[in-house]
Amino acid sequence: MEVQNVLHMKKGVGQNSYAKNSLLQRTMIAKAKPVLQESIRGLYHALQPECLMIADLGCSSGPNSLMVVSEIIDTIDEERKNLNRKSPKFGVFLNDLQGNDFNAIFNLLPSFYQSLKEKKDSDFGPCFVSGTPKSFYGSVFPDQFLHFVHSSYSVHWLSQVPRGLESRNGEALNKGNIYIAKTSPPEIAQAYYAQFKEDFTLFLRSRGKEMVPGGHMVLTLQGSVQRNDPDSLWELLGSTLHTMVQEGVIEQEKLDRFNMPFYSPTAEEVKELVEAEGLFSVNKLETFKVDWSVDTNQNLENRAKFVANTIRAVTESLLTTAYGEAAMDDLFLRFSRMVKERMDQEQSEYLNIVVSMIKRD
Amino acid sequence: MEVQNVLHMKKGVGQNSYAKNSLLQRTMIAKAKPVLQESIRGLYHALQPECLMIADLGCSSGPNSLMVVSEIIDTIDEERKNLNRKSPKFGVFLNDLQGNDFNAIFNLLPSFYQSLKEKKDSDFGPCFVSGTPKSFYGSVFPDQFLHFVHSSYSVHWLSQVPRGLESRNGEALNKGNIYIAKTSPPEIAQAYYAQFKEDFTLFLRSRGKEMVPGGHMVLTLQGSVQRNDPDSLWELLGSTLHTMVQEGVIEQEKLDRFNMPFYSPTAEEVKELVEAEGLFSVNKLETFKVDWSVDTNQNLENRAKFVANTIRAVTESLLTTAYGEAAMDDLFLRFSRMVKERMDQEQSEYLNIVVSMIKRD
Repeated sequence: MEVQNVLHMKKGVGQNSYAKNSLLQRTMIAKAKPVLQESIRGLYHALQPECLMIADLGCSSGPNSLMVVSEIIDTIDEERKNLNRKSPKFGVFLNDLQGNDFNAIFNLLPSFYQSLKEKKDSDFGPCFVSGTPKSFYGSVFPDQFLHFVHSSYSVHWLSQVPRGLESRNGEALNKGNIYIAKTSPPEIAQAYYAQFKEDFTLFLRSRGKEMVPGGHMVLTLQGSVQRNDPDSLWELLGSTLHTMVQEGVIEQEKLDRFNMPFYSPTAEEVKELVEAEGLFSVNKLETFKVDWSVDTNQNLENRAKFVANTIRAVTESLLTTAYGEAAMDDLFLRFSRMVKERMDQEQSEYLNIVVSMIKRD
Repeated sequence: MEVQNVLHMKKGVGQNSYAKNSLLQRTMIAKAKPVLQESIRGLYHALQPECLMIADLGCSSGPNSLMVVSEIIDTIDEERKNLNRKSPKFGVFLNDLQGNDFNAIFNLLPSFYQSLKEKKDSDFGPCFVSGTPKSFYGSVFPDQFLHFVHSSYSVHWLSQVPRGLESRNGEALNKGNIYIAKTSPPEIAQAYYAQFKEDFTLFLRSRGKEMVPGGHMVLTLQGSVQRNDPDSLWELLGSTLHTMVQEGVIEQEKLDRFNMPFYSPTAEEVKELVEAEGLFSVNKLETFKVDWSVDTNQNLENRAKFVANTIRAVTESLLTTAYGEAAMDDLFLRFSRMVKERMDQEQSEYLNIVVSMIKRD
């Protein structure tokens, strides 16, 4: 499976679409807002470019894509007024893989531009939004093109399933699991970390070339409390698939061959890799927790459904490729039940990392 | 009707899609190639930028969109080898209205990048492609951002149906016609030219800001032999609609209210407007003719069908808004028959203008 040809958030605006099931990611953006604002203010003070070039990497589609852009623009606009400065122009580049529903974002642009016109002073901007489809593991923009880079809930996606994981001597290594699990042999966690290290380092090198010295970058990603921690949600999804194998709904071989192209590092791992690469200095690194269901006031049934819908909108492109579209409704109904059971037993939270860094001279 | 919210080439890759019915526009691009190549060579000699920033305005979707980009890149790559220079990087911006099917272009990008990798030397580029959805009647990019601008078969589309055309004292002015026609009162042609003048001037001013001094621009558009010339194809489409009104298939009022947001200027008009604005010097201005059916070796039946399919792929978004989707199959079947009759009687050709110009210092 070529991840970059397959992975995309569920398109359109239907019931199962990412656009309708991205409150979790919206919450992450809101939680990271203070770090984002501090970083973008710092950048503006330091560089004050005439045209501020901004990239959002892994922008997805739906309302979240332009929300981040609005936040960044609002922060700068407030700051330049405080400093009594002319408004910069804004060059905004929304990046994601080529399978992302860019048409859906672009359809929102006229009302986005209209609302800027209504809300901002007449001397504002203007702001120019483009879409740039390409894997961010590699160059996406010309050299020294960007002042500010943002990426939320994207960098935990790997460029590929870790090499060597799928089989050794024809035998799957991570049998019955789809990620690092309690029953995984130790080389699974090693292979996952090695892939993350390779990808994240390439990410940093690519951004290092594209960003101007003094440019700022803010990344939010899912993290782990401890190195090699199994991920409870992927473990539940793995168990759901396992049950379907046992009932003969899904072939054993398909499950054995399937692993998530995903890794949630510890905060320490992120810091180490940034420092080892040496292109950026870490300005701030924080972690925060969010309940799987975001809103713990809802009843358990609804919370579990919310989790299943969220995971479906994100993973359906991968799972459909592996197991076929016909299995999806059944899979996520079962998954929802397993999530409900788990949430009834213990507190279930995502740990998240938000890191802001500055491109060295 | 807000043209910029409505107009787009027929999406997708189905039988009626623009992607499958854009051989005419492909032919125009091929015909304009010598002027394009000369212009882009001239630009490269004069400026030799490290990263060449290129915009294609009105890029549409389907195979044509990336064909122009390939031509531009190939020309530069050949030239820099002749001059024994390092390859520039390429920043390519594909622009069209927000309703354009950018997803369809973006899906072609992986194979586009792959083919560059295979065909070019290892020191080539790289090339970064973005999509920028916005009306080109107004700013689309930051100031002094672009070195080269290309636009083929787009600038003859107006930003709106000329003002005041739709009614005077509640009475439609261009009754039974959809464009300047033999039976149109003289103020129709005046209103059309006034709108073109306003739009084209705004186009030039916007590009004037976005382009660096010495930057080159090549425009290809449909033209007229004489000022105020009726357009035979629009006249035929108008007649087709008129027949449908007479048969009660379409309401009279809908036809009376509908006019094409289109103007084909004379070469003289284009030259005058560029010179009057003073931002660009005209480097080359040529006209060329292309048969409505492109390939006159085909039989008349096929040629007429080709014309009808071409016009349908381009105008269906406008016509559906005005007359409803249900009328389309019938309309274009009738239109095809009228086109066939006309082509049987006389030579039917598009006159086209290709103009290259240079941004003054």
